[in-house]
Amino acid sequence: MPVPDLADLKKAFHAAAFISELGLELESISAGQCVTVLELQPRHLQQYGFVHAGVLATMADHTAGAAAFTLVTPGCRVVTAEFKISMLRAAQGEKLLCRATVLKPGRQFSFVESEVSCVSAGESRLVAKVSATMAILADGRE
Amino acid sequence: MPVPDLADLKKAFHAAAFISELGLELESISAGQCVTVLELQPRHLQQYGFVHAGVLATMADHTAGAAAFTLVTPGCRVVTAEFKISMLRAAQGEKLLCRATVLKPGRQFSFVESEVSCVSAGESRLVAKVSATMAILADGRE
Amino acid sequence: MPVPDLADLKKAFHAAAFISELGLELESISAGQCVTVLELQPRHLQQYGFVHAGVLATMADHTAGAAAFTLVTPGCRVVTAEFKISMLRAAQGEKLLCRATVLKPGRQFSFVESEVSCVSAGESRLVAKVSATMAILADGRE
Amino acid sequence: MPVPDLADLKKAFHAAAFISELGLELESISAGQCVTVLELQPRHLQQYGFVHAGVLATMADHTAGAAAFTLVTPGCRVVTAEFKISMLRAAQGEKLLCRATVLKPGRQFSFVESEVSCVSAGESRLVAKVSATMAILADGRE
Repeated sequence: MPVPDLADLKKAFHAAAFISELGLELESISAGQCVTVLELQPRHLQQYGFVHAGVLATMADHTAGAAAFTLVTPGCRVVTAEFKISMLRAAQGEKLLCRATVLKPGRQFSFVESEVSCVSAGESRLVAKVSATMAILADGRE
Repeated sequence: MPVPDLADLKKAFHAAAFISELGLELESISAGQCVTVLELQPRHLQQYGFVHAGVLATMADHTAGAAAFTLVTPGCRVVTAEFKISMLRAAQGEKLLCRATVLKPGRQFSFVESEVSCVSAGESRLVAKVSATMAILADGRE
Repeated sequence: MPVPDLADLKKAFHAAAFISELGLELESISAGQCVTVLELQPRHLQQYGFVHAGVLATMADHTAGAAAFTLVTPGCRVVTAEFKISMLRAAQGEKLLCRATVLKPGRQFSFVESEVSCVSAGESRLVAKVSATMAILADGRE
Repeated sequence: MPVPDLADLKKAFHAAAFISELGLELESISAGQCVTVLELQPRHLQQYGFVHAGVLATMADHTAGAAAFTLVTPGCRVVTAEFKISMLRAAQGEKLLCRATVLKPGRQFSFVESEVSCVSAGESRLVAKVSATMAILADGRE
C-alpha cells in the first residue's frame, strides 16, 4: 500500500468550510488512522452547558472520513454513508481529542470507528464513540 | 397530557449556543413533533461543495431533542443517548427542512426520528434520516 | 424498471437456512417493498417471556434485504453492510408482521427501513424499527 | 461493587429459549465482560453459504445484555433499547466467538460493545462489531 501523501491529506481535511468554522485541527494522520483536536469555546455548547452532540458528531464524522481517505485509491472520493454516535458522558472541559481508526477498508465502503475524549483539568475521559460506514465513490456519483 | 408551553420550548431551543451559531431556526413545535429550518450558507459545506454530514446531524439531533422535550414531565432534562444518521443523498441547495417525530415516548428514554429535506430550486428532496434515543433525566444526573 | 420476477424472489428468500429455521414466511414482495410474517412460538422468546431482540433483528434484516433485492440489477448480490434496531416496546403475542421499504436505492448500497409489529388479541402494535444499509455486490466480492 | 454471582448469571443467560435454540454457549462472564461461543451448523447460514446477519446480531445482542447485567443492582432487568451491527466480513467457518464489554455503565442504561470473530481452519477474524444501548429497568416496566 502506498504511503498516503500527507500534504494532500491535510489539504483535503481543511478544504471543508464547516470544519474550519468549527475550529477542528488535524493533529496527525497516517495509514488507517487520524487524530484531531478541538479547543472548546462557549459557542460549542448546548443549553445545559455541555458540548453539543452535533459538535461531537461533526468531529467524529470528519475524523473518520479522513482516516478512511488514507486507504483509498487516488482519485476516489470518501463520503459518509451513515454513522451512529453513542454519548457516553456529558462533555465539559478545555478541549476534545478524537482518534479515528479504520476497522475494515473495502472497495465500496470502509468501516471506521472514532473515539472522542474530553480533556478537563488535565484529565482525559472518553465521552463519545462513533461507528461509521464511509462510502468510496470512484467518480463522485451514487 | 398537558399542552406544552410554546414559549418555554422556544426558549430552551434557542438556549443552545451551537444552534444559534449554526443558524438553525424553529419553524413549529407541538406535542411529539418539531420542525426546523436552516438557510444554507457556504460555511455549512464540506470539501466537495455539499452540506457537511455534521450540519445535517446537528440539525436532526437538536430537532429530535426538542420533539422529545414536548412530551416529558416538567423539570426533566432531555439529552441525546445515541443517534444514527443515514445520508441518503448529497445535499446541495438553498435551505434544509427537518421534521422530527417521537415514535415512542417513555419514562427513561424516548425514540425519535428526524427527516431532513433539502430545498433546491423549489424542489424538496429527502437527504438524511435519523433514528435517535433521547435520555430523559429526572435530575440532570446519569 | 423491469418488474421483479416473483418466483425468483421467493426462491432466494427461502434459500436462507436460518430463515426456514426461524419460521419466517414471505407475505408479499414488490418493487422496493417486502412484507413477512412470523407465527410466534415459545422458542422465539427471551428470559422474561418477550420476543428475543435477535428474532426481531433477524426478521427485520432479512425482510430489508429482500426489499433491496427487488431493485438491483439481475446477477447482483445483496448483503447487509449494517443495520440499527430500536426496540420500541416489549413484544408479546401471536405473530409478528414486518414491512420493509427501500428509502433510497443505489448502485453500491441501498438504504432500507423495516417496521415490525406484534399482533396480540387482534391488535397490532409497532414494536421495532430498523434502519439498514444493504450492500450491492456485482460479483460477490468485497 | 459486589462481585456478580456467577451461578445466577449463568442461569439468566440460558433462560432465554431463543438462545438455547440457537446453540449459544456461555464461555465466561465477569464484571463488565462476557464471552460466548457458537458452534456453526448449516442451519445458521443464509442463501450464499455465509452466517446469517441475524445469527451474528442475536449472539452479539445477548452477549452484550449479559455483560451489562453483571453491573446492575440486583432485581433490575436488562433489556435491549437499541443496537447497531456492522458486518465487516462475510463469516464462514467452524465457530463464532463473541466478546462483549461494557463501555459505560449507568443507572438508566449502559453502553456496551460486542465483537464477533469467526474461527476458520484455526484462524480467527473479526466479522462483526456491535454498539448497543441496554436499558436498565428497576421494575420491568417502561
